[in-house]
Amino acid sequence: MEAALLRYRKACPFLRNTSSLTLRSLSVAAPKRTLLTLARDCPVMTTALNARATKAAYATTTSTTGKTSPAPPGSKIVCPHAEAAKAQRSGPPSPMANVAPTSATPVTHQTLEGTFDYEGAYGSELDRKHRDASYRYFNNINRLAPSFPRAHTANTKEEVTVWCSNDYLGMSRHPVVHDAMHSALSTYGAGAGGTRNIAGNAALHLSLEAELADLHHKPSALLFSSCYVANDATLSTLASKLPNCVILSDQMNHASMIQGIRHSGAQKRVFRHNDLAHLEELLQAIPRSTPKIIAFESVYSMSGSIGPIDGICRLAKKYGAITFLDEVHAVGMYGSRGAGVAEHLDWTKGATPGQGPHPLMNQVDIISGTLGKAFGVVGGYIAGSSRFIDMIRSYAPGFIFTTSLPPPIVAGSLASVRYLKESMVERLGQQRNARSLKDVLGQRGIPVISNPSHIVPVLVGDAAQAKRASDRLLQEWGIYVQSINYPTVSRGEERLRITPTPGHTQEMQGHLVQALEQVWASEGLKRVEDWQGTPLGNTVCGTTTGPPASSVWTQEQLSEPISMTETVYEKAPLSLSL
Amino acid sequence: MEAALLRYRKACPFLRNTSSLTLRSLSVAAPKRTLLTLARDCPVMTTALNARATKAAYATTTSTTGKTSPAPPGSKIVCPHAEAAKAQRSGPPSPMANVAPTSATPVTHQTLEGTFDYEGAYGSELDRKHRDASYRYFNNINRLAPSFPRAHTANTKEEVTVWCSNDYLGMSRHPVVHDAMHSALSTYGAGAGGTRNIAGNAALHLSLEAELADLHHKPSALLFSSCYVANDATLSTLASKLPNCVILSDQMNHASMIQGIRHSGAQKRVFRHNDLAHLEELLQAIPRSTPKIIAFESVYSMSGSIGPIDGICRLAKKYGAITFLDEVHAVGMYGSRGAGVAEHLDWTKGATPGQGPHPLMNQVDIISGTLGKAFGVVGGYIAGSSRFIDMIRSYAPGFIFTTSLPPPIVAGSLASVRYLKESMVERLGQQRNARSLKDVLGQRGIPVISNPSHIVPVLVGDAAQAKRASDRLLQEWGIYVQSINYPTVSRGEERLRITPTPGHTQEMQGHLVQALEQVWASEGLKRVEDWQGTPLGNTVCGTTTGPPASSVWTQEQLSEPISMTETVYEKAPLSLSL
Repeated sequence: MEAALLRYRKACPFLRNTSSLTLRSLSVAAPKRTLLTLARDCPVMTTALNARATKAAYATTTSTTGKTSPAPPGSKIVCPHAEAAKAQRSGPPSPMANVAPTSATPVTHQTLEGTFDYEGAYGSELDRKHRDASYRYFNNINRLAPSFPRAHTANTKEEVTVWCSNDYLGMSRHPVVHDAMHSALSTYGAGAGGTRNIAGNAALHLSLEAELADLHHKPSALLFSSCYVANDATLSTLASKLPNCVILSDQMNHASMIQGIRHSGAQKRVFRHNDLAHLEELLQAIPRSTPKIIAFESVYSMSGSIGPIDGICRLAKKYGAITFLDEVHAVGMYGSRGAGVAEHLDWTKGATPGQGPHPLMNQVDIISGTLGKAFGVVGGYIAGSSRFIDMIRSYAPGFIFTTSLPPPIVAGSLASVRYLKESMVERLGQQRNARSLKDVLGQRGIPVISNPSHIVPVLVGDAAQAKRASDRLLQEWGIYVQSINYPTVSRGEERLRITPTPGHTQEMQGHLVQALEQVWASEGLKRVEDWQGTPLGNTVCGTTTGPPASSVWTQEQLSEPISMTETVYEKAPLSLSL
Repeated sequence: MEAALLRYRKACPFLRNTSSLTLRSLSVAAPKRTLLTLARDCPVMTTALNARATKAAYATTTSTTGKTSPAPPGSKIVCPHAEAAKAQRSGPPSPMANVAPTSATPVTHQTLEGTFDYEGAYGSELDRKHRDASYRYFNNINRLAPSFPRAHTANTKEEVTVWCSNDYLGMSRHPVVHDAMHSALSTYGAGAGGTRNIAGNAALHLSLEAELADLHHKPSALLFSSCYVANDATLSTLASKLPNCVILSDQMNHASMIQGIRHSGAQKRVFRHNDLAHLEELLQAIPRSTPKIIAFESVYSMSGSIGPIDGICRLAKKYGAITFLDEVHAVGMYGSRGAGVAEHLDWTKGATPGQGPHPLMNQVDIISGTLGKAFGVVGGYIAGSSRFIDMIRSYAPGFIFTTSLPPPIVAGSLASVRYLKESMVERLGQQRNARSLKDVLGQRGIPVISNPSHIVPVLVGDAAQAKRASDRLLQEWGIYVQSINYPTVSRGEERLRITPTPGHTQEMQGHLVQALEQVWASEGLKRVEDWQGTPLGNTVCGTTTGPPASSVWTQEQLSEPISMTETVYEKAPLSLSL
């Protein structure tokens, strides 16, 4: 049986990416549809079984150049695994779905004419993704504004509950945002029609930048197409302009920061995640007069850990560095006005909302944020000193040479930022729901990675298992939680990343918990106790050996007497004055 | 008088960026408001005049570190030049507007504490921009959808005509686009709420990608936040994945391609603009089996020149290279269905719209395009083979780690692409208006850089003069044409880049020509005959010594009997089926 399994696995592009564990359970646990019965439905496998030779199983042939030749006329191959996979997902189909896998042995990527074989090279790169199970299949999810957080799938009649969106507060469906967008679309049109320098700079852009500068108590702010672009363009431009600059980067920083640092050409020193002692050690080794940027995040989105902003700012001051803080997963959600974790910590220490004092916010030199997550729209920005912003505005190609954000996008963002400066209901509701879900899952022994933020990362620890858990939640329970695999997280730390919103009801939460329980049981996934004694063991809820992670939102703040049934949607229809 | 002028120029952040010619005309040509009378209104200049010493003119002091200290309490400085400039523009104010300019001598960028002086460094970088007149002031232009191509300025009651937008066809105001956007906003919300892999992949995205793939007759397409990101992410990922790849890049390629090539780490060979002989020479020097990418554009946006697609594709085939063609300024505007110049040339050679044959389109391996110019919305894309697209989808951080385009943006783009596949009226109207304007300007001796496309680049040849011409058109004539200065174009080639649309009426054109005539005369700007005998001389209309540039749109195609008064806006309200 094992030998047959191995043979199938090698031949089928779907099976070969499935763990032995899953294959084994498939081959024994489902008497009506064992692996062998499934194989008999599959033309490739049937051929394979008949011929008793793996090579003959390929209905298409693989040339020595790594190029696949088309199947002969009339021999349309329909692999049931491929078809099933296709029906569930509707992202670009795997190029391997209906063809044999390319050879795992190195290929030369050369054509018969002696030129480079580009298609062969692309195939090899894709093959690598399939081999290490990091190939991504996109789910077709259409989030429905009127019934948030519900969505329809590829089938418009099939509705599911979305539990992994970064539209954390549901602002993408908020009437204040919609009104502003409908109005700006009708008045100013669909697109900006140019770069900021040529015909694409309007009062709306300037107003939003002023609003964002005010949000972070900084003199200036600057808009970008996205925060990926903001981080990339800002770090690469800034570090390339400071002579011999060294960038100190948290080990867990987002890809956009890593790219920006790489593109700057500056020296980079990576410090262990949130490790102040290591950071100080690295700072000490750099000459005092050398320009240094410490780049880090407030909320690390995949683990929910929180950067030690205060400690990093103190070190920055001590060693003459500046701080670049990515508040992408925090803006709108932390702080008395939604300015992020820095504002939140000032608030906890007694700052009056919007008034101050805000000693921590003042310490941070550069903030980057997004309009595409809690603010519900799209786009990114930075905030900082006027000269700094003006320099980035003047030199960053990623800002200069691109069409500026469309009027409706800018208007919607402006309305959202203004609204969330005033309204506490959404962020409070989000934090309460996240806290409640963490508590319940902890009680049930479902392993949640402990953290002080709003992210609920449920640990699985295996790529195929995480994907299978995600697929089963979607297909059997109508619950959409994307599995997070390598390279987004390390191998062995694969997870389901759950993001509750204020729109998720108690019933929805109950349904989710029940579904997780059932999937965990039937798939035999590791529970809290199974992680004990492993390197990840003391990071999961209920088993942490260190002090419990101290939540950013205090119990007192969470207990604010705001009725969760109260809606402020109609309360403050902000007029969109520029 | 000259000595006084020089002193003022040195001291004032506005005057110092103005050419001697302009200063001279200001000091003599306007008896009521000569430079001296203006200076007497300026507190800085008054102080300067009174003290008879330039140094004392600084009401704020400049430290040796290059840092400016704040003005003493009560000494609010209001420079009339700064205020006037501010009133006209409302981009982020120059950091030098109300402070003394930083010293032009090199500064050490070190604080008294021995750490790096970041603000001083920013100031120096900005100073460089001011010194070489490449500092950009953004005009505040609010394009009005209902009265396209009109816009209001910072003053909502002050309307101007926009003559430099890249919303070439006015699709940003098109009812088909608006209907789709309003509807998608209400149904699916303001933002996508996640990356393509996590909660941000909807049927709309897949439909638009399928539509774009079909547009270019390619198997697949992929969406990006912008075409800047598409070019950057695609070239950097592609070239880094092909071993020892060499990129051959047209000298005039857009910044986004230059960045992508740089970020790939691949070797780069720059060939002279549109020079096939030079390109072949470079190709010959590279081993046959080495992967090679030829990156070029179809329409070069600042000169309007057209890339020799056919010749480049032939060379690519001969030497085993692949072609990357940026059709950003051509999609929607060229071709029988708006697929760009490649499709247009096939069409001219007899291809049936949408049917083919399309030998040239087939030759191009990779197309990049934008949804933010002729399509009127925002976003970018690439189209190519399925494996190629799947590889970029799987590896490009700029695609993977960013929030996907919002539903209303995708829906608007989809409607626009579908509409322009069918409707000829807009692109025909645009080409006719561009042709007509070129003819009239040529007859009047206003120097237009000759080209075969829809761009009308009017040559000025001096940064300060170009800016002043642009400012005068805006202030005196209510006409907005941004001046294009270094680094977007070479020094000495500064220009006004005019982009007619089908929405510009004959009256508007008459008004523009009259305004240009007047500004050219009163500013003493070079006319066609003045360019003769200079290196740029044979590029301007009417003086070209070579064969006349052969327009992409033939006379026959331009004479299509489509009534320009006919509106197809109501004709084809496409239902937005996914």
